[in-house]
Amino acid sequence: MKNNSPGKVNVDLQNERNKCTFNVTELTNFIDGSAEKTLERHNREEKVLSQGIHIEEVPSEYLSHKEKYELAVKKACLLFKLIRYMQEEENTGMDNYREVLGGFLGSAILQDGSPLTLHYVMFIPTLMGQGTVEQQAYWIGRSWSCSIIGTYAQTELGHGTFIRGLETTATYDPKTKEFILNSPTLTSYKWWPGGLAHTANFCIVVAQLYTKGQCHGIHPFVVQLRDEETHMPLPGIKIGEIGAKLGMNGTNNGFLGFENVRIPREHMLMKNSKVLEDGTYVNSPSSKLTYSTMMFVRVVLVNDMCNYMAKAVTIATRYSAVRRQSQPKPNEPEPQILDYLTQQHKLFIGIATVHAFRLSASWIWEMYNNVTAELESGDLERLPELHALSCCLKAVTTADAAQCVEKCRLSCGGHGYMLSSNLPLTYGLVTAASTYEGENTVLLLQTARYLVKAWQQAIGGNQLTPTVSYIAKVAAGRRSPPWDNTVEGIIDGFYRVACGKIALCVNNIEKRQKTGMSYEDAWNMTSVQLASASEAHCRAIIIATYYNEMEKRKADLSPALRQVLLQLVDLYIVYWALENVGDLLRYTSISERDIEQLQHWYEDLLSKIRPNAVGLVDAFDIRDEILHSALGAYDGRVYERLMAEALKSPLNAEPVNRTFHTHLKPFMQGKL
Amino acid sequence: MKNNSPGKVNVDLQNERNKCTFNVTELTNFIDGSAEKTLERHNREEKVLSQGIHIEEVPSEYLSHKEKYELAVKKACLLFKLIRYMQEEENTGMDNYREVLGGFLGSAILQDGSPLTLHYVMFIPTLMGQGTVEQQAYWIGRSWSCSIIGTYAQTELGHGTFIRGLETTATYDPKTKEFILNSPTLTSYKWWPGGLAHTANFCIVVAQLYTKGQCHGIHPFVVQLRDEETHMPLPGIKIGEIGAKLGMNGTNNGFLGFENVRIPREHMLMKNSKVLEDGTYVNSPSSKLTYSTMMFVRVVLVNDMCNYMAKAVTIATRYSAVRRQSQPKPNEPEPQILDYLTQQHKLFIGIATVHAFRLSASWIWEMYNNVTAELESGDLERLPELHALSCCLKAVTTADAAQCVEKCRLSCGGHGYMLSSNLPLTYGLVTAASTYEGENTVLLLQTARYLVKAWQQAIGGNQLTPTVSYIAKVAAGRRSPPWDNTVEGIIDGFYRVACGKIALCVNNIEKRQKTGMSYEDAWNMTSVQLASASEAHCRAIIIATYYNEMEKRKADLSPALRQVLLQLVDLYIVYWALENVGDLLRYTSISERDIEQLQHWYEDLLSKIRPNAVGLVDAFDIRDEILHSALGAYDGRVYERLMAEALKSPLNAEPVNRTFHTHLKPFMQGKL
Repeated sequence: MKNNSPGKVNVDLQNERNKCTFNVTELTNFIDGSAEKTLERHNREEKVLSQGIHIEEVPSEYLSHKEKYELAVKKACLLFKLIRYMQEEENTGMDNYREVLGGFLGSAILQDGSPLTLHYVMFIPTLMGQGTVEQQAYWIGRSWSCSIIGTYAQTELGHGTFIRGLETTATYDPKTKEFILNSPTLTSYKWWPGGLAHTANFCIVVAQLYTKGQCHGIHPFVVQLRDEETHMPLPGIKIGEIGAKLGMNGTNNGFLGFENVRIPREHMLMKNSKVLEDGTYVNSPSSKLTYSTMMFVRVVLVNDMCNYMAKAVTIATRYSAVRRQSQPKPNEPEPQILDYLTQQHKLFIGIATVHAFRLSASWIWEMYNNVTAELESGDLERLPELHALSCCLKAVTTADAAQCVEKCRLSCGGHGYMLSSNLPLTYGLVTAASTYEGENTVLLLQTARYLVKAWQQAIGGNQLTPTVSYIAKVAAGRRSPPWDNTVEGIIDGFYRVACGKIALCVNNIEKRQKTGMSYEDAWNMTSVQLASASEAHCRAIIIATYYNEMEKRKADLSPALRQVLLQLVDLYIVYWALENVGDLLRYTSISERDIEQLQHWYEDLLSKIRPNAVGLVDAFDIRDEILHSALGAYDGRVYERLMAEALKSPLNAEPVNRTFHTHLKPFMQGKL
Repeated sequence: MKNNSPGKVNVDLQNERNKCTFNVTELTNFIDGSAEKTLERHNREEKVLSQGIHIEEVPSEYLSHKEKYELAVKKACLLFKLIRYMQEEENTGMDNYREVLGGFLGSAILQDGSPLTLHYVMFIPTLMGQGTVEQQAYWIGRSWSCSIIGTYAQTELGHGTFIRGLETTATYDPKTKEFILNSPTLTSYKWWPGGLAHTANFCIVVAQLYTKGQCHGIHPFVVQLRDEETHMPLPGIKIGEIGAKLGMNGTNNGFLGFENVRIPREHMLMKNSKVLEDGTYVNSPSSKLTYSTMMFVRVVLVNDMCNYMAKAVTIATRYSAVRRQSQPKPNEPEPQILDYLTQQHKLFIGIATVHAFRLSASWIWEMYNNVTAELESGDLERLPELHALSCCLKAVTTADAAQCVEKCRLSCGGHGYMLSSNLPLTYGLVTAASTYEGENTVLLLQTARYLVKAWQQAIGGNQLTPTVSYIAKVAAGRRSPPWDNTVEGIIDGFYRVACGKIALCVNNIEKRQKTGMSYEDAWNMTSVQLASASEAHCRAIIIATYYNEMEKRKADLSPALRQVLLQLVDLYIVYWALENVGDLLRYTSISERDIEQLQHWYEDLLSKIRPNAVGLVDAFDIRDEILHSALGAYDGRVYERLMAEALKSPLNAEPVNRTFHTHLKPFMQGKL
């Protein structure tokens, strides 16, 4: 365990550590994958943090919007220079980029987000994924060395998740062998791309392709935005930043309009579709291939959610061990707030969720790799299933993560409202994920479409893909078995719930169609239920995956650790059973007595986990520099750190602010 | 209807207005209380806004933390000067302060909060409530004219909701007839009071009173903090600001420590308790009197919640009428997103909640006034009931309001993440209310204590206070009647649920005591259920109150408006029934068939309300200057306004930021 806080550890926190029943390092290694991987991570963290790029004279929360951007550019350049160096030194391909930018480390240094991230996360991958071999040869070298900086412009002011509706046009001119880019309306302006505003000088632009008078839908084009020498916007490029946001004010999100901007034909990325010199459009072998990047990002997102939640529960749990409040028993000292069951109720589900999501992420990551391998060999069969799964998992995990972080913040009372707790900033980052990469409700309904189709296939007696095969049982009319009040029974119950909801949706859609409604209108009228069915499906998948993946791994754990981790599995599953009691009552044979037993089981689990709570979050092994929280530091010196942070406010540099003389005093004297 | 947006109204929004079935002005008058009150409000808004204090050259979100404070002081002084003038001109006592500071208007001008607010909201009222007549004579005049500016310092770094635990000491020295104030620990530093850091020069300090070697608990003292001429902190006063926060960065929240600060004996506010010259402590006639202010603030808070929600749903609903997205039917235009049932599901409950909470607020306001009138005549009987009610109402309404605002923000997709939407700032303000004036979980458990006591009284055959009298029925063992699938039936069902939960809690506490647990430990182990029972009680009260208050008023409404408002009542009650299906299944005889009917009823209500959605939010009658949102303006010119706001960013003032030369270019050329 890394302890980067010199000085004495708070005695309450030390006591917590003393009574922890398992080996914290063993759990850290389990989370990282192995002791070697933990070591690798430690080395990487040390290498990056020892540069001191993250150290700020004045905390960035005190800067103006413009200063925040300027600080972000400075830090991003230094960080990316380091990555480039590590890359060359170790020759590790993309790995270092991902490890340093994603996960904990990147956000420790660039807390307001980075204006260079999309260069690596979207620009280079799109060049690699959608460029021909020649195009890759032309672009990748310069991008890799960062002699050009790119971003990826898809979303427009008027269209986000529904990408078919994008309005930017790229019209082929066979005379000059160029595409002409235009923004025909205000709503067609690109809006949101990170780094677009003042940082990138190149960009991949997604536009409606027109050739020979026909529209062929959206395609990617490489467009130079700014002069490489002067950085001035090129003619016809209308560019700027979109303004201040809830969070990520260092990302330099931009807008971009085109007025007859001409680019050579070769700047259309043509791995899949092509426009020949004469303007002939040659179709893509599979338009589904382009979904692959989107799915990749969604799968990676699930892992990001774990990192945000791990930070938040670490902060809130350590704080709750240090904070003492109220006096339920006369003549006894104030208890640690971690001793209150209501506080445990807020926090421990967060700890369990980190593990549940991490194992779900690794499970879907494996599936993703299998499916993309099949894709390479032309087998598209499992693509719709993976797509359906990635949609609902993205929606549910981002929503749960945001709620978890916010619950942690609120569980710290007023101090959680301080930016020095780092909880508000973390929420700002995590809540954005509910919207980007596909709005959550839209995604849930995409999964619902797959589920309804699966139901109809099941009714028709067709075989179902693995993740929806459970539907067959219920579709075949098998009755609910007697309720089994165990985690296995609950998992089965959750599948029953999902099934029951899908069936009810199908039924309601059909009924509505019979009254003369179109399918689309009937779908819309049922969409609140459909989104709920989709969520139920996802919950069943997550709890089953968490349970199964732990079962696979538990033999490798020491008995002490195994016990604690299985308590978390139980806690997670029982928590969700109690959250969904209404559904279980409707679709399974659970009884009032069972529910009361579950409630007691839950309360009992909270008490059992209580002594290990601090050990469990210590095992997330987040260095103080990365946690960046006055409430969550390893040494638990909460109040000293809160005060130390407060004293950094530039307002505290002077005893009397100048406005006393300019406004306050004249006002008080009636002379304003 | 005030339309302050010159220029054409978005055609979709105009169509919505054309098809509204009721008279919007009638609803506005209903909400304000009467046509006269609407006019008064309009006049007040015009008077304040015509001063132009709210107009900012650079939107405050682009300023640094220090600049935000300086802007807030400037604006607050100008606004309070205006209020002082209005006060003198119209001789309206406190009314103008409250109307201008609270509600919509204050936050339109001081969006990041005001450093002067506590002077009126806490300093003066505490002087009036807790000072003797002599003390009032001494202090009120100077406070009223603002020749001194005060604040109220209660919360400390180590203690918030649990005020008995405060550590600041005020020790009486009979030799000099002074109190000596000290901060014995770091955690005893005052922390949070608005305006404390650099604005106020006086303060009411809540401290543990020691005299003749004995502690007599917390009492209020008036302390001068800063020199009136120079504004320099006085000797022994350690003062500053607590740093940046999630929101309200204009409020100048401060910390305050004392080192042997001496104040005259007369500076203890002695209306209730006294310290005589020789140090003799004379007890308060009723320590409960001091709870009155806290209850007052909680009651007022419910109304504030309505204002935040009204803003958020106005923004999100208008935006949803303008925004078009996706194409469910081929060859048809993209629908307004307000046509999606899932979007209606997110928004319409917010509209209904504004009405539900407003009527609940007016109901409890009346009760508050009755109870305080009784208090004046020495009758304390209904105080515990009011206290219990104000606790759970504060907790539930602040939590619901925060969720409503956040749901509205997310319903606007990426654009809701822009500060120019004003949704993030609104969330920052509303979420703070879950913590201040009593942390929500703590408050729910205080109500639970009252409910458990009521249950025991009912079992003992004693009479119950009106708001818990429903408990008697169930406690007497009467069985659940057949389910009645109407709003009246649901209200009755909610009371059954609350009862059932209280009974189960009592049972569980007793069971645990029988295993040898202390009452306090048994209480703690059951506290997750207790908080849930308390919430169930509050939900029952709110839906019943909403229903009853509308029933009382409906005869005065035109048939068209009555129909719409009753649809909202139904929507609210059915929504909560569906949210609590599990509880209804456990504690009433509702059937699966009933639930499916409720679901259809709900979907049907959404469709019925849909054509009036824009009219309903227009009726909240929030001027554009107050709404302050690119997405929500009356004219619906969303995209033009988003772009106009973006262009105000100081980053957009130059085509190339200086960091291109200092960092980006050297980095790209490998020369950094």
